[in-house]
Amino acid sequence: MPLPTDIPRPTVKRLSLYLRTLDLAVADGRTTISSSTIARTFDFTDAQVRRDLACLGQAGRPGVGYSPASLATRIRAALSLDRAWNIAIVGTGKIGTALMGYPRFAGGGFKVLAAFDTNQERIGTTIFDVVIHPLSQLHEVILEAGIELAVLAVPADVAQSVAERLVEAGVKGILNFAPVQLQVNVPVQPIDLSRVLEQLAFEVSSTSPS
Amino acid sequence: MPLPTDIPRPTVKRLSLYLRTLDLAVADGRTTISSSTIARTFDFTDAQVRRDLACLGQAGRPGVGYSPASLATRIRAALSLDRAWNIAIVGTGKIGTALMGYPRFAGGGFKVLAAFDTNQERIGTTIFDVVIHPLSQLHEVILEAGIELAVLAVPADVAQSVAERLVEAGVKGILNFAPVQLQVNVPVQPIDLSRVLEQLAFEVSSTSPS
Repeated sequence: MPLPTDIPRPTVKRLSLYLRTLDLAVADGRTTISSSTIARTFDFTDAQVRRDLACLGQAGRPGVGYSPASLATRIRAALSLDRAWNIAIVGTGKIGTALMGYPRFAGGGFKVLAAFDTNQERIGTTIFDVVIHPLSQLHEVILEAGIELAVLAVPADVAQSVAERLVEAGVKGILNFAPVQLQVNVPVQPIDLSRVLEQLAFEVSSTSPS
Repeated sequence: MPLPTDIPRPTVKRLSLYLRTLDLAVADGRTTISSSTIARTFDFTDAQVRRDLACLGQAGRPGVGYSPASLATRIRAALSLDRAWNIAIVGTGKIGTALMGYPRFAGGGFKVLAAFDTNQERIGTTIFDVVIHPLSQLHEVILEAGIELAVLAVPADVAQSVAERLVEAGVKGILNFAPVQLQVNVPVQPIDLSRVLEQLAFEVSSTSPS
């Protein structure tokens, strides 16, 4: 199977969206789905969806459409979701705890195997069956559990140093909730909630000038 | 002042990033900042930063740079952040509660004025001084408090109907944490954490093929 590691990032985002629709179609017992049905769900054009799916080397059958199950399998393989990813949550404040309980993290190949905190009252306790370790044991626990991705939900002033320790311990990617720009040599996905809110405010202002 | 409501969305995202750097520069007591300093922080090109700032009709002084304070003011005006935005949090589970305590929401013109839930044990209590109202009072509380933006953090199966009630009550924009595509006629900013994680997994796979 040709591993399409050169899929453009916007296409990756859309494929990830299509996956939800396909999973729903499979759950509904449907055996075919057309590109226009997928397109309509997201207000995309039919051509756009077909172009994205062509990146996977996947062609629909004219007049019939795609098999949602096999298309979903193909997308999972392309997005490297056909294997398990071991995750650690670093910082078990409200955001960190919310993520430990986030239902989607349970399925979809993402497994939260460890959590870390500096708060003595939390250390040693479990949340959703995941043990909270002291931050001082970061290195050994990450190595031992084979953690590949980390969710960084620590205060801004320690985010960079904790991120460096994560990478040293072998973490290959970071989902960053701390409002700082991390300088590390692994992929980082930042989630800055105030930025998203700012964009929403801007959109509201430009669509309803009053 | 010409209100630049036609700023392209990618530019808006970058301006929002620059704002953080400018605020830090102001806090550090700096009176000038160059476009290349801003560019370096985000790995953008100098030309990119200058082009973005030109959208605001803001020119730097050659050899001197920009005033971080006045540039920040100009960006806030352009992004409609120079006024207060009243916010409601709908659903006070872990994610909703985390957002009520999110420090950045306190400053920056975003004020959380109300929260809603259906859980009888939470109704009537306060989190960070914000009262939790029963969902049945959504309409009157939103009208009365002049809520414009809502954070939707309810279970997926009720998200669409709650979103419709929010829009009916006058909400003009929604930050959506529920993993569903909302069909409403106001701007929606979706935050699907599992999608972000999927993108991270894909990036890790494509940068470190092993």
